[in-house]
Parts: sequence; structure tokens; C-alpha cells
Amino acid sequence: MTVRTKNLYPVIMAGGSGTRFWPLSRQLFPKQLLKIGGEQTLIQQTMQRVLGCAPSSQVLISTNAAQAELIRGQLGDWKQDLKDGFVLEPEGRNTAPAIALAALEVVRRDPNGLMLVVPADHVVSGQREFSAAVALASQLADEGYLVTFGIKPIRPETGYGYIKPNGRKLLGTRGTLKGYRVDKFVEKPNATKAAQYLKAGQYYWNSGMFVWRAATILDEIRTHQPALGKVVDRIAQLQASGAPKQTIDEVYRWATSVSIDNGVMELSSKAAVVPVKFRWSDVGSWGSLDEVAEKDKSGNVLVGRVIDLESSRSIVYADRRVVATIGLEDMVVVDTPDATLVCPKSRAQDVKKVVEILKQQKAPEHLEHLTVHRPWGSYTILEEGAGFKVKRVTVNPGGRLSLQLHHKRSEHWVVIAGTARVTRGEEVFDLQVGQSTAIPVETKHRLENPGKETVHIIEVQNGPYLGEDDIVRFKDDYGRTANG
Amino acid sequence: MTVRTKNLYPVIMAGGSGTRFWPLSRQLFPKQLLKIGGEQTLIQQTMQRVLGCAPSSQVLISTNAAQAELIRGQLGDWKQDLKDGFVLEPEGRNTAPAIALAALEVVRRDPNGLMLVVPADHVVSGQREFSAAVALASQLADEGYLVTFGIKPIRPETGYGYIKPNGRKLLGTRGTLKGYRVDKFVEKPNATKAAQYLKAGQYYWNSGMFVWRAATILDEIRTHQPALGKVVDRIAQLQASGAPKQTIDEVYRWATSVSIDNGVMELSSKAAVVPVKFRWSDVGSWGSLDEVAEKDKSGNVLVGRVIDLESSRSIVYADRRVVATIGLEDMVVVDTPDATLVCPKSRAQDVKKVVEILKQQKAPEHLEHLTVHRPWGSYTILEEGAGFKVKRVTVNPGGRLSLQLHHKRSEHWVVIAGTARVTRGEEVFDLQVGQSTAIPVETKHRLENPGKETVHIIEVQNGPYLGEDDIVRFKDDYGRTANG
Repeated sequence: MTVRTKNLYPVIMAGGSGTRFWPLSRQLFPKQLLKIGGEQTLIQQTMQRVLGCAPSSQVLISTNAAQAELIRGQLGDWKQDLKDGFVLEPEGRNTAPAIALAALEVVRRDPNGLMLVVPADHVVSGQREFSAAVALASQLADEGYLVTFGIKPIRPETGYGYIKPNGRKLLGTRGTLKGYRVDKFVEKPNATKAAQYLKAGQYYWNSGMFVWRAATILDEIRTHQPALGKVVDRIAQLQASGAPKQTIDEVYRWATSVSIDNGVMELSSKAAVVPVKFRWSDVGSWGSLDEVAEKDKSGNVLVGRVIDLESSRSIVYADRRVVATIGLEDMVVVDTPDATLVCPKSRAQDVKKVVEILKQQKAPEHLEHLTVHRPWGSYTILEEGAGFKVKRVTVNPGGRLSLQLHHKRSEHWVVIAGTARVTRGEEVFDLQVGQSTAIPVETKHRLENPGKETVHIIEVQNGPYLGEDDIVRFKDDYGRTANG
Repeated sequence: MTVRTKNLYPVIMAGGSGTRFWPLSRQLFPKQLLKIGGEQTLIQQTMQRVLGCAPSSQVLISTNAAQAELIRGQLGDWKQDLKDGFVLEPEGRNTAPAIALAALEVVRRDPNGLMLVVPADHVVSGQREFSAAVALASQLADEGYLVTFGIKPIRPETGYGYIKPNGRKLLGTRGTLKGYRVDKFVEKPNATKAAQYLKAGQYYWNSGMFVWRAATILDEIRTHQPALGKVVDRIAQLQASGAPKQTIDEVYRWATSVSIDNGVMELSSKAAVVPVKFRWSDVGSWGSLDEVAEKDKSGNVLVGRVIDLESSRSIVYADRRVVATIGLEDMVVVDTPDATLVCPKSRAQDVKKVVEILKQQKAPEHLEHLTVHRPWGSYTILEEGAGFKVKRVTVNPGGRLSLQLHHKRSEHWVVIAGTARVTRGEEVFDLQVGQSTAIPVETKHRLENPGKETVHIIEVQNGPYLGEDDIVRFKDDYGRTANG
């Protein structure tokens, strides 16, 4: 069912960096890019969900430059409509400044525009219930409220904030749904309090989703976070006067780093809550996959080439390798091409400590996968050792790498799929499957896919230094000057 | 301390196929080739141990053709002395026929020769105690006994046979060591019996190591396994008359498949036992690593790039990848380039069921590793997909592959270390690091290492069929006609 509110602008918050789903998520490949609880990735699921409420041309994606390419890749089906939909944070300053930037964009498009703010990496089931809740919230937002969605607790969770509606202040209804003024917000409670809230039945989880008029949230930011309000207003002026991006980015650095919950919602007199009927999970850790994934008879989630004997209530993710598990109980096993995790579900939150250790060790396994996505395709490191590196490189139809040279390495390319167009020095020639070429040190070269089939090549690099930063770019289709 | 008995011939039994240490062991890469309980592999440790009792020129290795190359590779330090020391079983027929073949070789060398039979894949600590026990056993063997070594039980083990000495029949002493006639052999007991034996203190584990005169064991085989005796005598005749290997192999097929324990020891009146003082483990499963490996303060055995938080009594083997473990208790985690195992120690015996499933699936992961050793060096599969395969190939100094051609695939070679000599059609040329060549379909070619440094190349194969059996061999240094 589609219940669309004409002037509703969905804002997908996609700036998070993923540590809690390591090793499947990486700093540069966060959770919203993973397939969790469905055939689609979380951000694709989120996109589908908000399209039940608004057309794709009204969707905004709030993220950072590093992630925008990957997200564009995953949202390719809506490529045209999303072209101007990316609102890039110059740097991570928490949710209030990011939401303010998106609100400026909405106001620019429609001074009365409503925003539906949703995290990119949550799982929701019940599209009809979701759309209905958004429709009621939009109604209240039109009346000037900052509307949250309240999730009925199903366990004494200590990791979320809670919202208590004021039952005597009914603001509106839609079918069986009701909207209330908020009596109070409660920060993450201890276990005793959480158990009381669960029993009392008058407290709801704060889902981190909101509907409000863009102009209203900007006003509330000015009221409750005046320093941030000044930064936001200055950015609006600079944008209107066509100031260069670098100047605007500089001003953004001065924005107060504060969450929208602490900085505005908890202080505002306009907060409202709609207790919802859809199922929701923030899938905050491997342990919480239980809430959203399909399980076998023994309660296991087994993905990939898993050979399991008699395990129960366990989560096993295999990638290309075989993973054999025997007699596990309540365990998590995640196997990726360069890193493997094994822990009890109850310790899954501690994955972030592992990521911290890897970061301290400057180990690449916290940062990105062996397969790295680029605007033109991707590369996968097959092996590296003293003086050599072997990659499989894919180039999308129509894609091409920059015209470049390397000071320290020579490269050999062997085509294994598609037809590759190669520029080498002054020559330009095509290579078919089974053909190869050698690119000497200091020779300008370019790889390009003029066809309709994805090109795959095996690249063998030789040289004393093989870092990605040994690259001099002459021309690039994607406006890049540094490596990539 | 070296206590050598002049006419003692150590026979290392190295024919086992390894399933219980999967995924580190494979059918074609069994447990004796692994580093367990030391810096050396088990067969290297075994070699060192028997060299405390006899010179390397007297050591025999009983194995099969498939494993002989790998064992030669690991025992390279004794290459010259072991040249004629390999006694190859034409096919696996259990221990009695294999021991008979070795006995024939010992008798040929020395009609009065003694044999020290030791499995290649056990861990023993206490070289001095080992040598002393062998010295006493040799004394008794010279008097015509079939001598076993009795290990003092340290737990109520149901997986071993037990030996009860006859305390009134002392056959000899050496220092504090004593040798007795055997009162009885007991097959693997149930748990109750095993507990009784442990308490009684008069029962010893049968370690599967023996000393006897070669002529004596042949006589006892003739007495207790007359059918096998006839096969053995016929083989001796054929060997003496210089019959072709194929004929001898054909006769061996008729040998009774029986273990030396069931077939001879338990029936013989000449059995003796020396209760020993050295520490012994057959490291029969991942769980038993505890007996032989160094542990950290929490009782963990952590090998490789392991990031562990608060695990205890667990075994974690990482290869090149990072393995992160959190809060494990009594678990086994083994990570290899193509397969990962996770199970509680108590279920480690069930690894063989996993191997059985892989075998049924015809999955390569039960058979061999991604790195495969060959007489000339090794190759490692880096990636394979539709129409291509990428390998890293190493060629030892002086090694060369066969002169060969492929009907279905072309190959590209890029040298990443050393100097490779390439035969391609009629040409012969050398390639340095960073140089490459292409071998078209149906073109005779050969790869060779004329230098002193190991050659490494990256090989990219293209073609509709990339099986190892698409190979036509013209010349081979290692006498092979099939693939390899």
C-alpha cells in the first residue's frame, strides 16, 4: 500500500561507520551496505521502504564523500532521480548538524517541506504499518510537532533510549494508530529500570526515526542549540550566494557535535510520539541478527558454504570458503576473505574492541575488504608479497580508470573476461580474453571498458613499492586527483 | 645422549591419511607433515628421535607413492642417506603387510637386523628416556622377543589398547627400566574398564611402537598369518630375482589386510613389554593438542595472527588471515586458506564426519590444500572462476617442470622472484623479475629454475577447461606420465 504525503522528503541517514558487524562491515564498508534480513542490502531495503511514502526524486541521502560512491553503486536503480539527492557531510559531526544540512536542502526545494528521517541500517517489517505511521506523523508534523516513532519493547533492553507518551494529550489518530505528546524521554536505563519499563507497558523504544517540518527543526535547533543554529544559518547564506564548497566545508567544522536526541528532542516542547505497529530492529550487533534472519529448525542462521553438525541457536556466515561447525551453541562465526570472527552471541558487542586493536596495529583488516569498490568497478587483492601484488580488476561497461603512471612499479594485465581497451604510452588497442600487455614503469596508461560486458583482468604488479599512492593522474572521469 | 645399537634399523610408519586434523591435514597432506608440538613437523621430530638410536643410513620410511614426495621434501637434510630408505606400499593394506615389506628390506641388508617400528605422527618427549627404552628393547629383541613399549596411563582413555605385563616374568633390566613378558593385550576398553585399569596401575597403553628382529617378525607372520606369510615369501623371491615392480605390486594386492597388533602381537607367545619413562602422545585429534602444545596463562594455544579477548583453554590456529576470538571456552578454531573449523574440544573427534561429507560432495577441501607440493616445487591456487585460474608457482633451484602442452588452455607467466628459464615451442630464453611470456594453446613449453634462488611466477590460465589433467608430457625429470 502506498500512502504518499505530497511534500514529504525522506532523508536516509547513511553516515555511520561500521564496527559492530566486523569482519563483514569495515570502516569504509559499513553495515548499511550489507545484506541483512533480506535479499537486498540494508540501504536498498530502506530506499524501498521510504518509496512507499514519497517518490524517489524527493529522497535525500545524508552521508560522507567516502561512502557516497558505494551507496550510489547500491542505489543504481534510482541513479537519475538521486543525482542531486546526496547531502554530503564534510566531516562526521554527529546527527544534529547532518540533519540541519538536509533540512536546508529540503527548505530550498519546498519551504513547507516535511522530512522523514530514517537510519539507513535498520530493519523494518510491515510496509503497510510503516506507511500508515508515517502518514499520521506527517499530519502531526504539519501542525508543528517533532514526531518520533515508539517501538513496543519486547525485552528489557538497556541499549536504547525510551519514550513515555502523555496518554492524556492525544494529538491525532489514523485508523487504530494514535499520536501523543511526549511526556518524557529517558536515556539508556540500567537493567532494573529497563525491566520496570517493559512491565509498565507505557514506555517505548526510541527508534531514531523522525518526521517534522524542515523549517520547524531548523527553528528548534536555533532555540536549543544556538551556536549550531548560527553555523547552519551561515551555511544557508553561503549556499545561496554560491560560495565555493571549500568555504562551506570550513564553516561546517565549527558545528556543535551533538545528537538530535540530546541536542533538540529532549529539550523541545514540541515532541510527539506515534506508537507503531511495524516490527523494527536496529540490528546493532551480530547477536541481534536473531531478530531479523531466517532460522533453521535448531535456531541457526547458516549462510554460505557451511557444513554444520548439530549446532543450535548459532550464526555462521561463510563466504567462498568452507566453514565446518560442530556442536556450537549460541555462537557467532563469521568468515571473510581476510578475517574470521568467533565468539559467543553474548560477547558480540565486544567486536568493536577487536576493531580498536586492529586500528592500533594499523592492520588493513579494520579499514576495508580485500575487494575495494571504485566508481569504475572494483579490485580484489588476490595475493601480495615481497616485490609483487596480484589483483583481479573489474571495469564496469563504459567505465574507465584514470590516465595514470607509476614511478615504482610495472604492471602486467591479462584479460579473463570482456574486451579491454588499453592506452599504453601513445598506443591505444583492444585486448580480448586470453590476451595480455605489459605496462613498464613511468609509462602513461589507462584501462577502459568500451563494451557492454564487465571486463575482468588479472593484474600482476612488480616493484620495490606497491602502495596505492604511487599514482600520478593525468585525466580522470570521476574528478579524482588522489589515488583510486 | 646417544645409545646406538649397531644393527638397529628404525622403520618410520608414514602411510596414514590425515582426517582428524582437518582442515590443517588433508587426505594428501596427512598429520605427520604438520608442525605439532614443536618447530619441526611430526615426521621431522620422529626422524630426529630415531637418530638417537641409529644412523640415518639405516632409517627406512614405510609410506605410499603419493606421500613419498612430500616426505622427501621434509626430510631433505638426510636426502642422500635416505635415498634407498623408502619402502613403498603399492596400496594401503594395514600395518602387518607394510611391516613385512620393511622387514624384508632389513633382512636383505642384515639377516640379524633389528627393527624399531615407530609411527611418524606421534609426539614423544624425553630423548634420553626414549633411547634407553629402545636399548633395553633391543636387548630383548636380540633374545627373540617382540617388544612393545608400555605408556603409563594418565586418564581413563577408551581409544587405546592396553597391555598388562606379567610381573613375575622379568626378562631384563637397564638402569631403572625393566622388561617383562606380556600377560595379556586388552582391546579398547569401555569407560568403566578404562577407569579400573587406570586405578589398578598394572595396565599400560599400547603405544604402537615395537622392537624385534626382522627375521623373528617374519617368522611370527608366517605362524599366525600363514596367508600373508605366503604373499611375503613370494615377494621376497620376486625381489631376489629382480622381477618388475608391477609384478610385485600385483602380489601385494593379495596380502591380508590386518594390523600387526591383532594379526600377530596378540597371538604371539613372544610378546614382551618395556614400561617406559618418556612422555608420549599420539595427538589423535585437535582436542589432544593440549598434551603437547605450549599454552598461555589461560590455557590457550594461539598460533598465527590471532586477536583474542578473554578466551580460555582454547586452541586457535590462524594462517595468513586475522582470526579474532572473544570469550571462547574449550573451543577449537582452525583457519586455513580454503576451509575453517569451529567446534568444542569435546567434539573434535567428529571432524572425520565433516571430512566424510566433503568427500561425498566431491569437494576439493578434503583432498588437498590450495598449495600443492610437487617434486619441482609447489603451486598455490590464488583464484579460479569461469574460464580462468590464477596460480603462484614456485620452482626450486635446479627444479624443472615437465616439457608439456595443453589442448584447452593458454597460459601467461609473470616472474615475481628469481630467474626462470622458459622453453616455448623451439625457443629457450630466460625471464627476470617483472618479465613475462605467453604460452598459446597446443604449444610445447617448460619452466625451469637454472639459478640458486627459488623462482616464483604468477600463472594466469585462460580456457574453457582448466583441469590439471589437460596435460601432455613429453619429458619429465621425475618419471611421471600423468599430471603433476
